Amino acid sequence: MSVARMLTGDRPTGRLHLGHYVGSIANRVALHRRYESYFIIADLHMLTTRHRREDIAQVSRNAREMVTDVLACGVDPARATFYLQSAIPEVGDLNTLFQNLVTVPRLERVPSVREMARDAGRAEIPYGLLGYPVLQAADILCVKAQVVPVGKDNAAHVEVTREIARRFNHLYGEVFPVPEMIASDTPTLVGTDGQGKMSKSRGNAIAIADDAATVRRKVMAMYTDPNRVRADVPGTVEGNPVFAYHDVFNPDRAAVGELKARYRAGRVGDVEVKEALAAALNRFLDPIRERRARIEADAGLVDQLIVDGTERTREQVRRTVVEVRRAMGLTGAYQQVRRRAERARKAAATA
Amino acid sequence: MSVARMLTGDRPTGRLHLGHYVGSIANRVALHRRYESYFIIADLHMLTTRHRREDIAQVSRNAREMVTDVLACGVDPARATFYLQSAIPEVGDLNTLFQNLVTVPRLERVPSVREMARDAGRAEIPYGLLGYPVLQAADILCVKAQVVPVGKDNAAHVEVTREIARRFNHLYGEVFPVPEMIASDTPTLVGTDGQGKMSKSRGNAIAIADDAATVRRKVMAMYTDPNRVRADVPGTVEGNPVFAYHDVFNPDRAAVGELKARYRAGRVGDVEVKEALAAALNRFLDPIRERRARIEADAGLVDQLIVDGTERTREQVRRTVVEVRRAMGLTGAYQQVRRRAERARKAAATA
Repeated sequence: MSVARMLTGDRPTGRLHLGHYVGSIANRVALHRRYESYFIIADLHMLTTRHRREDIAQVSRNAREMVTDVLACGVDPARATFYLQSAIPEVGDLNTLFQNLVTVPRLERVPSVREMARDAGRAEIPYGLLGYPVLQAADILCVKAQVVPVGKDNAAHVEVTREIARRFNHLYGEVFPVPEMIASDTPTLVGTDGQGKMSKSRGNAIAIADDAATVRRKVMAMYTDPNRVRADVPGTVEGNPVFAYHDVFNPDRAAVGELKARYRAGRVGDVEVKEALAAALNRFLDPIRERRARIEADAGLVDQLIVDGTERTREQVRRTVVEVRRAMGLTGAYQQVRRRAERARKAAATA
Repeated sequence: MSVARMLTGDRPTGRLHLGHYVGSIANRVALHRRYESYFIIADLHMLTTRHRREDIAQVSRNAREMVTDVLACGVDPARATFYLQSAIPEVGDLNTLFQNLVTVPRLERVPSVREMARDAGRAEIPYGLLGYPVLQAADILCVKAQVVPVGKDNAAHVEVTREIARRFNHLYGEVFPVPEMIASDTPTLVGTDGQGKMSKSRGNAIAIADDAATVRRKVMAMYTDPNRVRADVPGTVEGNPVFAYHDVFNPDRAAVGELKARYRAGRVGDVEVKEALAAALNRFLDPIRERRARIEADAGLVDQLIVDGTERTREQVRRTVVEVRRAMGLTGAYQQVRRRAERARKAAATA
């Protein structure tokens, strides 16, 4: 039995932050050794909401930063294939062939498509954004991934992939595995402003690549309980982003418990709670920083990983497309025309 | 000044009939000498409503019959490039890249998409059917066609192509001509049953390839004025399919005028009117039959035309895709990654 194949990845929209770590990266680090792991750098998906030349001009740098972040977080480059989606045009062919296997009302029921349109500030959804789950099916099925880690955002997408795989197999014969979802119960990390989830565009993010001083500065400026005007006013721990981060990133449960008790009783200043958090975050990030330093010292390592991964994946995708077109009968259609032409030429030559 | 390029074509759903002739073929025969003409055999479009293996298994035969019909009608094979859409997978890549340049509400306003869904008996529109005009934009723009003949069915589609071309050029620089529509005032031909437009699936069609006896048989069975139970009952010419065909295919205007007058006065039997029509139709079809006989005598001619045209078109499409990806910056994105990797390798080698 060969090892199952896993696909995961992100749009190359910039440096990863602690919200990404909690929401997906930690899970991928844990999972990637169990599978043959593909990490897509999904720049064609980026085009559904950011398609200007200025956006595309960032892809190469963002791709390198994203892969560097993922490796720094602990993904073993020997056990992962990173690839740039747009460099594999055969994915567009598959996307086109899959478009008739799912209906418009089905796609309109995918909640995240609507959210993405709203986040992108688009009143009218681009056609490609409605079809985001179809392109994602092409991504997952082009490498015949058997498992896909999902958070709450993308489970509905992967459900569409499963439907497309089943529909394809039913219509044209067994070509695709129906990928299993590995659901992880990952919390959404609130931003440093306490005003919604951590997001680079909202300016409330702590990047995985931030240095110790930057982390400390961002933590000291964090939103806490707004009713607590002095250190001796009892404060609220629940919904307080400083304590939310303590819960996730500070492994010293006893110290966190004690800080919470003193906070509720009005017996600790915000500064002390934040200093403890900054120290905990930097302890968490230090090994990541060490790995990053080693990765960056090896100039070209990450770029070469992306190139090798993309070439390797393209070969795999080409094989899949050959299978798909053969199963659908499209290869046969053109072959018949060519064979008839050839037979006639031969017959004419021997006549 | 080079000659402008024209794109036209059909889904390979079977033999062409007189409705196709009146609706588009006659116009293409007239136009194709003025342009560098591409005729697409649009089998990927067929998949939007017929995607079963049994349907795809018909593509090769239908393609040959369709091209034979078009040539028999008078298109000069030396002045036309016929190509099989599905044999050019780069079209799927372009389709995918164009999907973000048009919105869902815009596509929902295209009336023929709704009609096609209804005709196909689909309550829920497949995603690919909503995107029919996007794939059509890929077809038209992949060969950089400057002119597209349109009837009333497809003008709304080509308007989407024009919008996508303009939007692309605006975002990424001038790559595409904005194709002009050549509108033709072609009537819709009613079927032999008088119950709607001529359509193979409704069984009310006279194929261009029908022999003289078949044409005569179909004409003799045609629907006429249902109130006219005997030859001496005055009949109605308007909306009567027999006279509609006389008007289109019988060049002897005097004879047609006389038949109409006698029909209205109840002084001619249906049989005489129909015999005259069958004779007129066969006179119209005879030169087409002669050309068909010459084409079919040259075994492999049509198949070779499709193969040569497909290879030639694929080269053109590949050039277009290179330009498109370069203009969007996608080529550059991957090139930057490769160059950085290469520079690092060289630096390491010289260190």
